[in-house]
Amino acid sequence: RNAASIPPSPRLPLPELPPPQLGAHLGELLETGRDADVTFEVDGEMMRAHKLILTCRSPVFHALLSAPMREGNEGVVRLQDIKAEVFRAMLHFVYTANLPEEHSGDRLEVPMTQHLLAAADRFNLARLRTICERKLCESMEVETAATTLALAEQNRALDLKRVCLDFVANNLSEVMATDGFTHMSHSCPHLQAEVLRAVADLKNNAKQAEEEEEEDTAAPA
Amino acid sequence: RNAASIPPSPRLPLPELPPPQLGAHLGELLETGRDADVTFEVDGEMMRAHKLILTCRSPVFHALLSAPMREGNEGVVRLQDIKAEVFRAMLHFVYTANLPEEHSGDRLEVPMTQHLLAAADRFNLARLRTICERKLCESMEVETAATTLALAEQNRALDLKRVCLDFVANNLSEVMATDGFTHMSHSCPHLQAEVLRAVADLKNNAKQAEEEEEEDTAAPA
Repeated sequence: RNAASIPPSPRLPLPELPPPQLGAHLGELLETGRDADVTFEVDGEMMRAHKLILTCRSPVFHALLSAPMREGNEGVVRLQDIKAEVFRAMLHFVYTANLPEEHSGDRLEVPMTQHLLAAADRFNLARLRTICERKLCESMEVETAATTLALAEQNRALDLKRVCLDFVANNLSEVMATDGFTHMSHSCPHLQAEVLRAVADLKNNAKQAEEEEEEDTAAPA
Repeated sequence: RNAASIPPSPRLPLPELPPPQLGAHLGELLETGRDADVTFEVDGEMMRAHKLILTCRSPVFHALLSAPMREGNEGVVRLQDIKAEVFRAMLHFVYTANLPEEHSGDRLEVPMTQHLLAAADRFNLARLRTICERKLCESMEVETAATTLALAEQNRALDLKRVCLDFVANNLSEVMATDGFTHMSHSCPHLQAEVLRAVADLKNNAKQAEEEEEEDTAAPA
């Protein structure tokens, strides 16, 4: 190939790449209920869904929907201990990989996040769990820290629990004065021992840092 | 709320957010063929898939699979004029929103891209079409430009066609000397008129730019 045949690259801009539509397409499926083959009854509300999608997204749905349905319930699965709004938001997440707009980003409020964390734990949705844990970490405050700690413990949210313990240890007297702390001490008494351990670690770390600083001052290089 | 109760924000880093797994979960469904309800016969190869996914992703699959199947073919859909490897890569895209690793990014080769563009046009997959158009724009060269122009025309790839016409007009004598140009002139003779129009526009634009520059020089601010 001689020099003259070396091609100039195109001068016009490349066609713009649209975002993936996979979530949008599955979201339509949920919204229209087309070809739905299972109905959930939650809080008296009926919601139609697709076993194929649910079972490939959550091992808990897989176990729940693979078992033969009891006779006479016409494909209806009744769920206890979850609010309709929470289950609807969770279904949206299962189909689209995102929370519905009214509950996503800054619009995700703390009580909804707490319910969604419990739902994520119940149906084993790892990414939804992390979204909720991050939100609750960002929303951490003295008034609610102990309640959030108990919630993290009950829903196996290990990252959130770590952040809570650190926060409580760093704001111990303020947090101990809240109703949430009293409630936590009754509902999960063993968490008090974990708080004590976090406080002890904090003190040790502070002491160690102080000693290192003294050493640095005593013997400069 | 007094100053002492203003909460310090957590000091530990937020839990890391994993990437969405929707595509990965559906990809597993395709790979395992679990609960598949349609089989494609392509080039003698049988591939199992799920009507629910195909019909929500492509209006063409919707039309193809919603029509009652002819008796006796046991849910098998025979497809002509598409290679097994191309159809398999396209199915992967439909389920996961990505091309399979061996055909994605830099590994996507021009002949495969050409086949995938035709498949994207046939099954009306807008994003796959754009991925192919972008790849063919980036891979544009004198030897293949006319063939790519004909391909863009045959598969309604308007953005790619625009880039091809511009490229051919800018490299006219080199491109006219290729076998591809002869072939294009026979298979899509009307494209010659479009190339002529592109060349004329190019000349007009150049002339206009020259005149504007002269004006600027003649009458400085």
